[in-house]
Amino acid sequence: MVSAVIVAAGQGTRMGPGVDKLFLEVAGRPVVAHTWAQFDAAGCVDEIVLVVREGMRGAFEELARQHGFRKPHRFVLGGKERQDSVWNGLATLSLQTEIVVIQDGARPCADEALIAATIAAARRTGAAVAAQRVTDTIKESDGGTRITRNVDRARLWSVQTPQTFRVEVIRRALAAVRERGLHVTDDTAACEWIGQPVELVEGITPNPKVTTPADLPYIEWLMRGGGD
Amino acid sequence: MVSAVIVAAGQGTRMGPGVDKLFLEVAGRPVVAHTWAQFDAAGCVDEIVLVVREGMRGAFEELARQHGFRKPHRFVLGGKERQDSVWNGLATLSLQTEIVVIQDGARPCADEALIAATIAAARRTGAAVAAQRVTDTIKESDGGTRITRNVDRARLWSVQTPQTFRVEVIRRALAAVRERGLHVTDDTAACEWIGQPVELVEGITPNPKVTTPADLPYIEWLMRGGGD
Repeated sequence: MVSAVIVAAGQGTRMGPGVDKLFLEVAGRPVVAHTWAQFDAAGCVDEIVLVVREGMRGAFEELARQHGFRKPHRFVLGGKERQDSVWNGLATLSLQTEIVVIQDGARPCADEALIAATIAAARRTGAAVAAQRVTDTIKESDGGTRITRNVDRARLWSVQTPQTFRVEVIRRALAAVRERGLHVTDDTAACEWIGQPVELVEGITPNPKVTTPADLPYIEWLMRGGGD
Repeated sequence: MVSAVIVAAGQGTRMGPGVDKLFLEVAGRPVVAHTWAQFDAAGCVDEIVLVVREGMRGAFEELARQHGFRKPHRFVLGGKERQDSVWNGLATLSLQTEIVVIQDGARPCADEALIAATIAAARRTGAAVAAQRVTDTIKESDGGTRITRNVDRARLWSVQTPQTFRVEVIRRALAAVRERGLHVTDDTAACEWIGQPVELVEGITPNPKVTTPADLPYIEWLMRGGGD
């Protein structure tokens, strides 16, 4: 059985005060409704756990009604940091869950092909993450504004979500991080603490995240069929 | 005296065959007309050298007429690689030029504040480049699709143009690269060969490059005042 955990408990501080990026409209729907719709439609996912902020459950239930989401889903409260929210999501998985797909609520373009590819890679290796090759020219600084090194981008990847794991792998990895009181910004970083290798799964189509309002026009264009 | 070299000789192979990304329309003008307009309007730049492909000079002269560009400008043919095109541009600079601002023709949002900031930094240090901090989560692979390292992005910058230099600095740097038969994809990388430090100049506003058609909706939105 495959469960998805959609992390939708962040505050999105880069959007400015009072703006919840998950509920910004793009192509006629809130961002997080697109994300949910991808997982609702994906045949490779059996159930969905939504990690939400206190007081937000009603808004999400309204989304499910409006958009007719049919796949079994339930809610759990988010934690202090992203890793705490993921931890809470993992705690509610069905006993039969073998594979868990962790997804940022603010990343609405992850389609079924990408989700399925990370599931296949996680079954094979234990841990997999959607990623794209870095195409910008990258330099390393001295910590200030002086370039100290040209970085060879040939081996650099920008990682996204889905981040997909055998359940026991991500539970052990996050437990290791929590025991040490560490802070990780993505779940694959936790795997390092248990020596679990992570497989990069290159997406075919763009898979942007909404971080600032400037990200919306591009995402709207993608959703309207741009580039097809 | 400050001269700009606008590199507008590339083929833009990532756009597909027969498409010249410099002449794609965005916000009512070809991309390269926006780039040129920024330098035409910038009080900190005295003259403009456009590096163009064989047979394209007429199209650029037509742009100047249509958009009423008034700053002194002239044309020079591009070379085989980007670094050869820059070299050709440097060869045509006025004898009085102290500072040269090298700009990708396909980067239309570099405004006067950014151009001026790189000029000031280059006067002070010899070499400067517009840059933005990397905000994506970055991993290093083993050359294949296995993650080998979490990269600390705190010291990583994505570099853009303008890349701005004291003229004798960039002439020496590119000569050093050419003597060794090396290939560099940006001019600041050439500075390494003469031990010239390069200063990162953080842009305030986005400064995207047109690489694929997917970049256009965002740029259109920026030009229409998005985010103001």
